[in-house]
Parts: sequence; C-alpha cells; structure tokens
Amino acid sequence: MRMVDLIQKKKRGESLTAAEINTIVQGYVKGGIPDYQMSAWLMAVYFKGMSKQEIADLTSAFVDSGDRNDLSAIHGIKVDKHSSGGVGDKLSLVIIPLVASVGVPVAKMSGRGLGHTGGTIDKLESIEGFNTVLDREAFIHNVNTHKMAIVSQSSNLTPADKKIYALRDVTATVDSIPLIASSIMSKKIASGADCIVLDVKVGSGAFMKSIAEAVDLAKTMVEIGKSLNRKTIAVVTDMSQPLGHEVGNANEVKEAIEILKGQGAEDETVVALTLASYMTVLGGAFDDFDTAYTELSQILKTGRAVEKFKELIEIQGGNSKVVDNPSLLPQSKYHTEIKALSDGYVSAIDAEKIGITAMLLGAGRKEKEDPIDYSAGVTMVKKVGDKVNVGDTIGILHTNSEGHEEAVDLFNKAYVFSKIMPESHQYIYEVIH
Amino acid sequence: MRMVDLIQKKKRGESLTAAEINTIVQGYVKGGIPDYQMSAWLMAVYFKGMSKQEIADLTSAFVDSGDRNDLSAIHGIKVDKHSSGGVGDKLSLVIIPLVASVGVPVAKMSGRGLGHTGGTIDKLESIEGFNTVLDREAFIHNVNTHKMAIVSQSSNLTPADKKIYALRDVTATVDSIPLIASSIMSKKIASGADCIVLDVKVGSGAFMKSIAEAVDLAKTMVEIGKSLNRKTIAVVTDMSQPLGHEVGNANEVKEAIEILKGQGAEDETVVALTLASYMTVLGGAFDDFDTAYTELSQILKTGRAVEKFKELIEIQGGNSKVVDNPSLLPQSKYHTEIKALSDGYVSAIDAEKIGITAMLLGAGRKEKEDPIDYSAGVTMVKKVGDKVNVGDTIGILHTNSEGHEEAVDLFNKAYVFSKIMPESHQYIYEVIH
Repeated sequence: MRMVDLIQKKKRGESLTAAEINTIVQGYVKGGIPDYQMSAWLMAVYFKGMSKQEIADLTSAFVDSGDRNDLSAIHGIKVDKHSSGGVGDKLSLVIIPLVASVGVPVAKMSGRGLGHTGGTIDKLESIEGFNTVLDREAFIHNVNTHKMAIVSQSSNLTPADKKIYALRDVTATVDSIPLIASSIMSKKIASGADCIVLDVKVGSGAFMKSIAEAVDLAKTMVEIGKSLNRKTIAVVTDMSQPLGHEVGNANEVKEAIEILKGQGAEDETVVALTLASYMTVLGGAFDDFDTAYTELSQILKTGRAVEKFKELIEIQGGNSKVVDNPSLLPQSKYHTEIKALSDGYVSAIDAEKIGITAMLLGAGRKEKEDPIDYSAGVTMVKKVGDKVNVGDTIGILHTNSEGHEEAVDLFNKAYVFSKIMPESHQYIYEVIH
Repeated sequence: MRMVDLIQKKKRGESLTAAEINTIVQGYVKGGIPDYQMSAWLMAVYFKGMSKQEIADLTSAFVDSGDRNDLSAIHGIKVDKHSSGGVGDKLSLVIIPLVASVGVPVAKMSGRGLGHTGGTIDKLESIEGFNTVLDREAFIHNVNTHKMAIVSQSSNLTPADKKIYALRDVTATVDSIPLIASSIMSKKIASGADCIVLDVKVGSGAFMKSIAEAVDLAKTMVEIGKSLNRKTIAVVTDMSQPLGHEVGNANEVKEAIEILKGQGAEDETVVALTLASYMTVLGGAFDDFDTAYTELSQILKTGRAVEKFKELIEIQGGNSKVVDNPSLLPQSKYHTEIKALSDGYVSAIDAEKIGITAMLLGAGRKEKEDPIDYSAGVTMVKKVGDKVNVGDTIGILHTNSEGHEEAVDLFNKAYVFSKIMPESHQYIYEVIH
C-alpha cells in the first residue's frame, strides 16, 4: 500500500494494521517516506486518533526502530519511572536512592534537559565530580551491588520516535495523546524496564492542562504497558504551581536532600513517596501501597534514604559532603529578593513563567549546545495559600550576571494575589493501574 | 507569526486573516515554508474547513502568486466556462462556437489532459492542422473579429496553486471543498474572465460522488465569485454514467459535431445548451435563461452553430472539411465489438472504468510526456436504460495495437445489467446563482 493510501485510510478514521504501521515507521526512518507525507499522516492521527491496538503497534514499531537495552544481567525486577515533565521536578533525585534503599534495583537512564532547567543528569552534574558516563559493566555492577546507577542516555534508542518528534514539533502535531503515549512508552520499553511507574502532571505548568486529558494520557499509557507485557501504573499529579520551593539545578539538589532527610516540602514529599511506593510494590519489596508508603516514610525520617543518596554520589565519583553541607554546591554571585507589593494570599503561581524565569537566569538551555549555570535558579519563598504582607520576600533569584529585569518582571507576573485564601489543590488526582 | 503557529490556529478551527493566508501561500511558493509544514496545514484545513472569507483570501493569494491574463483589449463581457471534469465531456467543443455565434466573446485558455482522455486542446489537435498556439495579438484579434479563440495554457498562472496541488495529490488532501474551490476559481480569475459558468459534475464518474457534496462545492465557488466580483453561476450536472456515446479524442470531436448539428445525444445536448444559455445571459446576449435556451436550440437546428465551429477550425488553421466528413478525422486500425452476454437492461455504466478503458487503448496520458493516440477510444453503443439481448453490440473499442484483453475486461466490468428497467437520472440537478 502506498503512503498516500495509508494517509487516506487514517483520514477516514479507519484503523491501520500492524504491518501498515511498520511500513510507515520504517519507511520514514529509512527515508522512503518523505517528511511531507509523514506530517500529513500525523495531522490525520491528531484528528482521528488511534485504536488501542494501533497505539501498541506504533509503540512496538518505535522500539523496533533502534537498540534495546539488555538489562538481563541485573538481578531482580527492574522498575523505571517517567515524569511527563514539570517545573521544579527534582523527584528522580529522591526516588532513585529511596527505591534502592529497599533493595529494588533502579537502572536509570536519563537525559539532559532542554528548557526551563537542566534534566536529572544536569542536576546531578552540579555535584562536584559526579560522573554520569559509566560503561555497561560498571553500570550493571553498580545496580547489582548498590541497587542503583544513573547514566546519561547515549544508546540508539527509538530513533523513529526521535525523528518523528522533531517533525511533530514544527507541524503542530505534538498534542496528540496516541502520539505522546507511544513516544513515552517506547522509550521506557526500549530502556529495558520490566515495570514502569508514570508521573503524569496536570495543570498550568504541565503539558496536560485538564485532569480529563491527563487521565486519558495515563490510561492510554497503562494500556500500552498491558499490551506489551510491562506492568505499568500511572499517577496523575498536580502541576498547578511548581513543585517545592526551588527551580534550577544545584538548588534543586539541595531541596532533594531536604526531602531525603524527611524535611522537604509537603507537596514534593507526598508525590515522591507515592511514586516510590508504587515502584517498590511493582518491584516486589512490599505487598501493597499502604505498607510501602508507611515504610518509605520511615526510611526518610530515619536518615536511611539520605545515606543511600550519599552512596549514589560516592559510587559515581561525586563529592558526597554536599549532603551534610549543601553550601559546597555551586553558589551564585547575586541573590535578588523579590518583595510583595500588596497584602493578601498567593492565589496562583504560573509554573511556566517561573520555569522561563529560571532559564533566563541561566539555569536552562534554549538550544541543545547551550551551557548551563548550575548555581542559577529561583527560590519561591512563598507558595500558593501563603499569606503575605507588603514588603515580605516572596522569592529570590539566583544568578551570576547583573541586569535581569526581564526575569524579575516575569517572576512578578507569575505570582497572582487575592484577598481571600485560595482553595488548596490535591497533590495526587488519580492512580491508573 | 511562525508557520507552526498558523498550523496550530487552523487545527483549533480558528479563521486565518488575509495577511496570514498570504504569508502561507507566498512563503510556500518562495520556499521559506517547507512541504512538511504545508501538508500538515492542508490536512488541518481538510478537517476544520475554511470560512467564506478565508476561501476568498486563499483564492486571491493564488491569483496574486502569478501572472494575470489581460483581456481588456477584448470588446464585450468575457465569459469563461469550467467543468470539474468527467468522462466523455466534449462540451467545450460545442459551447465555444455556440456562445460565439450570438456575439458573446469566448477567449478560451485550456489545458492538455492527464488521465482518461486528452483535454480540449488535445481533442482539437486531432483535427489536421488545428493550431492551439496563437500569439497574444492573434488571440485578441480572433476573439474581437470572430468572437472566439482557444489556446493551450502557457502563461505563469497561479503557480502557488500548481505547487500546492502537487503536494495535495501525494498527501491525501485533494478532497477538501475549500481547497478544490479556491484552486478552480483562482485559475478562472487569473485567466481574465469577467463572468464564469461552472459545470460541477456529480456521480460515479465525477470527483463529487453525492449531490450534497457537489452543491456544497458549487455554492462555495459561487461565493468566491461574489467576494471577488466575478458573476458566477454553477450548474450541478449528472456524471452517473459517461456523457454521450464517445470517449476519446477524434471520436469525441465527431460526436461534438453531431451535437452542433442538433443531432447529438440528449444528455450532452441538454447540458451543453444549459451551460451555453447561462454564459450568453451573463454575456448580455439574452435577458433570461429560457429565451437563451430556446434561441440556442434553434441555432443548433439551423446549422448556424456547426458553421461557427467550421469558422473556428479555419481561423486556427485546421481542416474544416472534417465537419462535413468526419471520416477525415484520425481512424484507428482495430474496432473490437463488445457483445452482451445476457438479456436485460443496462442499469449502470461505471464512468471511471470506461475512462480507464479509453486510456488503456491509447486515448489518454498516464504521465505528462506520454503521446496520445487521437484515433483511440471507446464507443458506448448502449447506455443506461437501453434494452439489450444476448449478442447485441454494447460497445466498440478503437485502437491501433492488438491485444487489449485488459481493456475489454474493464469495459465489461463497467457495464451492469438488470432485469428491470432502471430509473432515469436527471441531467441537471441544481443551478446556483
């Protein structure tokens, strides 16, 4: 069947067979199908959707387009975690040692960030000496011995998805749930995990703006997991404001350490414990979620979790003294305090604007090759629901260069005040098994 | 605004401004907008449609992308005709002399065909000596003196539409009424006509399969005409079976001569008279349709119309003896009679299959540079509603090469028989002013 006929078929809302989907994906990766046909097909998918079977077949085709990580040398059930991305999300830094501390292996591959702040890899690299490039043997050895390791992604995983994502980005076809779900799940499956826990964020700072959409995406991904024999749990979590108080790199590491010490902000602590609990249940460490949650909360409080984080830093060559003395982390030269201009309650914080503020200060990359200033970032002193008086410090901008009027302006625009106390948001909206 | 944002805007179903549409069309023609963004936008247009204003703006942008024919040197109201294409449609050959015979100028630009048979230009070129390449002066002179001239299109009209049409063809975005309507109307407007009569065909042999769709297209084109100050009338006509009895080139000229003599098949005669009547009313020769129809019918019967066709052939250098002696037209070597295999009525003739039969015999081009065999073609001896007995000749295939099993087979497949007499179709379904 010619590509034009396959576009036509999808345009009419018919389902494509696995063979047809393979023809499209392979044809596109190999160059037989040009960009202009692929983008027309993607737009037809946006409008007509895909069946469960088609989405599973598309995910498989993405996985088959490249390498698969072979994690069979790792003992135990390998559980991976994915977050759909938010502002101030440092939860991987917490979850890796927390899950490993109960013996569930976490073999984590992660990326560098493009956007508001660096990715998990960038954040860890703000710790002096932390090495995120391990060879396969060292990686497997660390996971088998210490139950954890994290490396920057370098393998040729799901090249079809990468090529298609780049096209979606410039053709307004990003916001299609079948395409988002298959993209995320294909990467997780190619990464070699046995079980997957997904953090699907919803709210002004997330890609999914409504709970209904987020639940739809979560269900679609859990269905893919079922079809392709990966136990998958998706947790829909709040991103109506940034998580915690810190957005950046070094300052997020500092805040992650606080969570690991049991002294973190409530929102982050609850979400981290929830995700870690499902991971440890899937990994076989606990029988049920409630037991896992209680046990893991204890592990935070007793200091076992933060000790495990020290261990992670040490086995990857970093200076673990930062855990007890966070001032050893990169510090910026300037700290600009932002003051409240009126009395009232913080009623909303636009996460997107806070993210861009951090990027403007140097914490994130606009282009792939841009450098990152690990010490740059934003501290939200006040969060939604906090009462403020004129002159109170609501935030601090950390940067190494002078003259950040644009960032100050944007930070102020991110904050909305009201005379009445706003309703509080839940941290967790729904869990899909 | 970036193209990705304009795709997004259309995807959400919002209307684009004239400036935005110009940005898209000009950007695409000049190469600033790549094929893959254009095809995604076209697919979004397919699903979300366009407002009347957007369609008019798109048409204008197509017209502005190239040259416009300047017909101001021609005296009188210039009326053009367009047919959305059908099998056996030789009506332009009839309409040009018929309209000119009452003094309404017809300055016709026409194309060579790609498909079942040649276009109007190819058909005329089957007449020995007929020259379809006139310089501008000769063209204007002929129209002013004889009220008619026909040339093959060579100017740089609507290059944006040409480039976009080629992309639509390979991205399954042809069947969008806003895109079809703006494509057709932009060509007619750039051609320089003051008034336009459109023949919108509907049925198995036409692009529009339902009357509702055809009426929608017709109304959309009439609206464009109104917006851009061109008086436009659209006539929705039947293409549930091919028009008349002949499909090819020389044989269609022969059949056109019969119509011009008042001896043509009823379907073709009625449609030709209807279109010509609206053209002459718009051209100011008659006050109303009924008068025009009565007068033009008389002109066929009295021989004035066929004399005018002789005149057309002569002023363009052709051998006008073919009019009185059609055997001077190219004749094929082989004439294969197709016999009925059972008794009954012809209940349907698939026009598409008849068209492909003609092409297989040599009457049409598959590729742009293919030669045409003017003498090749199909004669449908029996048409829908005719009673046949086993052994009756239902059709004749004309060709210069032996071994056309595929064509014979396809011709037979085109014919459907039934025991009961089928209901007859109207020739004209609707007229949109």
